[in-house]
Amino acid sequence: MNRSPFDLGPWPPLGYVGSALDRAAERRGDAAFIESAERHGGAGVYAISGEVVVLARRGDSLDPLLSPEEAHGLGPLLERVFVGLVDGAARTGISLAREMTEVLKARGDLLILDLRSIAIQGLAPEHLPGLAAAKALLTWHATHRFCAKCGHETKSAEAGWRRDCPACGTHHFPRTDPCVIMLAIDGERCLLGRQSRFPPGMWSCLAGFVEPGETFEEAVRREMFEEAGIKTGRVSYYASQPWPFPMSVMIGFHTEAKTTDLTIDMNELEGARWVERAEVSEMLLRRHPAQIFALPPVTIAHHLIRAFIEKGAKLFP
Amino acid sequence: MNRSPFDLGPWPPLGYVGSALDRAAERRGDAAFIESAERHGGAGVYAISGEVVVLARRGDSLDPLLSPEEAHGLGPLLERVFVGLVDGAARTGISLAREMTEVLKARGDLLILDLRSIAIQGLAPEHLPGLAAAKALLTWHATHRFCAKCGHETKSAEAGWRRDCPACGTHHFPRTDPCVIMLAIDGERCLLGRQSRFPPGMWSCLAGFVEPGETFEEAVRREMFEEAGIKTGRVSYYASQPWPFPMSVMIGFHTEAKTTDLTIDMNELEGARWVERAEVSEMLLRRHPAQIFALPPVTIAHHLIRAFIEKGAKLFP
Repeated sequence: MNRSPFDLGPWPPLGYVGSALDRAAERRGDAAFIESAERHGGAGVYAISGEVVVLARRGDSLDPLLSPEEAHGLGPLLERVFVGLVDGAARTGISLAREMTEVLKARGDLLILDLRSIAIQGLAPEHLPGLAAAKALLTWHATHRFCAKCGHETKSAEAGWRRDCPACGTHHFPRTDPCVIMLAIDGERCLLGRQSRFPPGMWSCLAGFVEPGETFEEAVRREMFEEAGIKTGRVSYYASQPWPFPMSVMIGFHTEAKTTDLTIDMNELEGARWVERAEVSEMLLRRHPAQIFALPPVTIAHHLIRAFIEKGAKLFP
Repeated sequence: MNRSPFDLGPWPPLGYVGSALDRAAERRGDAAFIESAERHGGAGVYAISGEVVVLARRGDSLDPLLSPEEAHGLGPLLERVFVGLVDGAARTGISLAREMTEVLKARGDLLILDLRSIAIQGLAPEHLPGLAAAKALLTWHATHRFCAKCGHETKSAEAGWRRDCPACGTHHFPRTDPCVIMLAIDGERCLLGRQSRFPPGMWSCLAGFVEPGETFEEAVRREMFEEAGIKTGRVSYYASQPWPFPMSVMIGFHTEAKTTDLTIDMNELEGARWVERAEVSEMLLRRHPAQIFALPPVTIAHHLIRAFIEKGAKLFP
């Protein structure tokens, strides 16, 4: 059988998606229900401190879902949120003070690892959606302890899904920042960019936050022009992905290049270049002779590039 | 020529999209540049107070783009933001104290009207994107005067695109809340819902905010189940729309119903029902015998419904 050089085989899963959690939003205000779900035999806890997650070593494997007893043994909590239910048992997110992580790193029964690494190493794919929800929510609590409207200290409500101001009565809801990420296509070439903070050799799609008063499609065209100086035409939605760094949702697009001369915004990018479909395939598969490579399979950037490799010009029929 | 009963003719424009503004993001920190663009002969101002916009009466027409002199005559400002450039001339957004609107309503040379009505009545379609950006930004300033991290009062920076905390140094960026809006399809029927706050007879798509840690597609399925009790399968992106009420972006989807028995969440909806393609066409065109109708053409709900009327089952090939 002839396999096309652009058929890369089975697709890897996109990280942080495919949640099996029942968010049970209508029960968040019911403290007795939440407590009972947390006492359920199958209840488990995600413990997070800033960018890192606490994993329990269980024989040869690592488990980010701690038992309530294990979680209790980690020390004092900053915040506690109800993430959702799995078969009636609670998934709880807790945040620990950053200084505690140094203490926990010394414990032989635990591993302290940042969430990006957990995702990239494929350590606990089924827990990524719950970890993403817990991390985004807990980061929101840590950075939104005061009322933006009046300045008074606020209190967590609805099992962590709201913060209420006792002074002015405002209800504050968790924030999620929409961010477009897009691959520009010029026939058999696509546009990759490099930020200076990337590991050496790594290239990705371009991305940027959606601003007030613009559509995603307008944001895609604006960012392509601001960062790379190219004009783009059609914009085609691909997929979305929770991105809890610190609290975004990535919205993936392909877009058709109308111009190809690059004017790079060096404040945003260290470089950008057009890459042929065959070459970007080598980068994605990490067998490029120059050791350059594209983002790992858990990212939507990887999937956007892969869709271009497989479909080529058919992305814009 | 036979025209299909489901061909509704030319499509109306979606409101708040198709911006001609150059946001000139890289110039926002350059006060001298902004001032010079505001002194440009073509400079104009959008004046907003809460939900209402100030329009100048010019002969038989109404104009939301005020001259700098007209804007100056409206009274003291709460906040000022640089929205963008048109041919090098600034578009500025200003907010007025709510108590001023009563004074301005008495002036014969002005009309005070809420932004939704301006859009629905088609008064100034070319200004809707700028008004949307100005309104979302100014609402954000009005409700985010204090640092959510430390409680100190913050100051506007970057011509209104950031607020900085002088106490803890945090930079705060404008907030945009992603909100999915979706039309569920069951063969030749679609699902419409009614909120109690709607005008009598009006029906729409279902909608809800995207939560931390979920994809748009997961949010669509969750909301359909929470609000209508139905399970849905495939989810197909349609378009996005800025929705500055107060500061959202609407993300439109069609989704395939897997179950059709309705269990309505009466906290969210007053009613929901499956409507045949022919009947929903009568609602969209406002010629339904029972005087029921769907949302007006400027909304993405209208466009989602219209796409179903025109394409029917072809939405999910």
